[in-house]
Amino acid sequence: MRNWEPSGVITITTDFGHKGPFAAVMTGVIISRFNDAKVIDLAHDIPAHWPPEAGFWLSRSYQYFPVGTVHVAIVDPGVGTEREILIAQKDGHLFMAPDNGLLAPVLDGADRVCRLNHEGLEEYGVDSPSLTFHGRDIFAPLAAELASGNIGIDDIGRDTADWTPGWLDDPEIRPGQVSGIIVTVDAFGNLITNIDGALIKDFDNPVVELAGHRIEMKPTYGRASPGEYLALINSFNVVEIARAEDSAANGLGCDRGAPVVVSNSG
Amino acid sequence: MRNWEPSGVITITTDFGHKGPFAAVMTGVIISRFNDAKVIDLAHDIPAHWPPEAGFWLSRSYQYFPVGTVHVAIVDPGVGTEREILIAQKDGHLFMAPDNGLLAPVLDGADRVCRLNHEGLEEYGVDSPSLTFHGRDIFAPLAAELASGNIGIDDIGRDTADWTPGWLDDPEIRPGQVSGIIVTVDAFGNLITNIDGALIKDFDNPVVELAGHRIEMKPTYGRASPGEYLALINSFNVVEIARAEDSAANGLGCDRGAPVVVSNSG
Amino acid sequence: MRNWEPSGVITITTDFGHKGPFAAVMTGVIISRFNDAKVIDLAHDIPAHWPPEAGFWLSRSYQYFPVGTVHVAIVDPGVGTEREILIAQKDGHLFMAPDNGLLAPVLDGADRVCRLNHEGLEEYGVDSPSLTFHGRDIFAPLAAELASGNIGIDDIGRDTADWTPGWLDDPEIRPGQVSGIIVTVDAFGNLITNIDGALIKDFDNPVVELAGHRIEMKPTYGRASPGEYLALINSFNVVEIARAEDSAANGLGCDRGAPVVVSNSG
Repeated sequence: MRNWEPSGVITITTDFGHKGPFAAVMTGVIISRFNDAKVIDLAHDIPAHWPPEAGFWLSRSYQYFPVGTVHVAIVDPGVGTEREILIAQKDGHLFMAPDNGLLAPVLDGADRVCRLNHEGLEEYGVDSPSLTFHGRDIFAPLAAELASGNIGIDDIGRDTADWTPGWLDDPEIRPGQVSGIIVTVDAFGNLITNIDGALIKDFDNPVVELAGHRIEMKPTYGRASPGEYLALINSFNVVEIARAEDSAANGLGCDRGAPVVVSNSG
Repeated sequence: MRNWEPSGVITITTDFGHKGPFAAVMTGVIISRFNDAKVIDLAHDIPAHWPPEAGFWLSRSYQYFPVGTVHVAIVDPGVGTEREILIAQKDGHLFMAPDNGLLAPVLDGADRVCRLNHEGLEEYGVDSPSLTFHGRDIFAPLAAELASGNIGIDDIGRDTADWTPGWLDDPEIRPGQVSGIIVTVDAFGNLITNIDGALIKDFDNPVVELAGHRIEMKPTYGRASPGEYLALINSFNVVEIARAEDSAANGLGCDRGAPVVVSNSG
Repeated sequence: MRNWEPSGVITITTDFGHKGPFAAVMTGVIISRFNDAKVIDLAHDIPAHWPPEAGFWLSRSYQYFPVGTVHVAIVDPGVGTEREILIAQKDGHLFMAPDNGLLAPVLDGADRVCRLNHEGLEEYGVDSPSLTFHGRDIFAPLAAELASGNIGIDDIGRDTADWTPGWLDDPEIRPGQVSGIIVTVDAFGNLITNIDGALIKDFDNPVVELAGHRIEMKPTYGRASPGEYLALINSFNVVEIARAEDSAANGLGCDRGAPVVVSNSG
């Protein structure tokens, strides 16, 4: 287990979009408490009220930030109800999110998982939070205090062994076949699955089935002719279906949630 | 009146959108002059040429940034004409914007309001600004000099007592009834009004009328069933109409400018 | 030739859009290596797989960042194939991009142009890059090392005198007439051409022809009545076609690629 030593970096992932000052006021709250914080917006275009994409990207991206980073993720349809807040430690990073399944891919293998103690937060100046914007009123101030080293996870959390499971089934593994789903679509229209490359590394000749199409795997986009479909293990180490210099999502009429099967036709 | 002491933080609010380098070059100009500036993009998706939304968000958001922040807001259909530039001080924050009504909600209660003296700006290296991008050529360099403490408001402004009024009427207050309008719609489709929570705090049983619907007020989104409409005092302390886990804007066919009435049916 | 002295600033220009963590993980990689880096997102809404707009904006924007800035631009349909990477020095700034024509407007007049030496990058911790995300695995780490001063252009590049030409023809110049094209459309619907103001500076009475319309040039937007078309030399010193308080792109049905002629009707 890697110890927690704050780097001063905080990432923020939300479904707030880019209209209005919602993400910016979180940054304002953070630097009001911790002037030297480095705040990085990881993604704000998570589909509204759909936590799995936030957890997917967080679990595949945190490794590229300095050890000691605090990652805040807020996709929170239950804000203001009794849902709790989780704080997890993994590989020397901290993660904070509502306990609604968002963090599932991160909690798998976490060194430590805590529930936020709402009692006693006044001591850290977190009092009378609004009922509708915990990102600004609870997550941002606590992330600032954790990232500055003013407080530790023990000051505000109690260990827990149960939490809300993720919304997506893990990929189903059979001999010579792995079934998963499309988790997200990027700006190019590439369809990104939850199937880790390791699950098909022994396949001699993997073929992807999606929306009635059989698509061959190639090492990179540039190896296909423009307009041709291809599948590949992408740079976040999951299976992705692309269309060279075009949008696979548009061409195949697929979106997140579509089932995908990788078979060894070898 | 709180004194002005610069914190080194600058926020930027515009209608530039996210296409092209327009906001980024403002940041470039700022750090070229003041290397330690912390520049935060408050919002760039203000509707084109519609200052009221910028002023609304700024007046409801500045409190979450450090005292000593310089807030620049540019929604400026009159750029290059004779419209003037205002600099206001309030609660220890500075605000700069075109004198076109944008700052109205901030100027209400400001400690000081000045007009920019265009004469003498060469002394601060602001000469030959373009006629179409004052954000980069006037606002950004002056914000940098103010935020660094190199210059003060007295160096570049002269006090004034008149300015262009805001474009929106203040809410109309009658016994047991307050009328206002939708100012903005967030990424979730929540409809945000200009009716401050204080205006209805004595209502026993407030009911919102909008687009022919009567909608009850609840404390938070999670208290409604998915698909149900609700109204609430949101985290920026104004009345908001929402639809649980769905878009109220789409469901009600409403957009900014729609009239809203809150009545005490109690 | 201005010497290279790093300012610690890095700009990033891509066609990644704002969905997902793609740009953010580049920033994560940079600050993991160079904690004091100032990373500025110049633009991420470049049309997918269309390098000319990235090069256009970069060549017209870099001047507004501190001398010593490293500008990374990635619009890279050929990622993972044999396309090479260019590093150029101009006016005391560095530029890195795939050798696919993107940098053409910058290379014109550059002090120095190099090709990246892929051999030996392991020495700088750049090993086993993914085949599909060189932005994160090659550009970001090298930009961090260059911006921190840890390495110089000579450590990783070899001078070259040939590169992939730009995708757009230079404007065609005849007596009393200059022909160009629309390079990009901003969030207001202003149509921005590749015709530099210097090319028409001697025209007594320039008139713009576009999509069958003849449009007069004015000094600024505010000099036209709302709804009226106008052309002007914009703040980046190129000819732009606008519609006062409205969208010229919608009104004229024009998009990037449309031909434009400026004539001296003198």
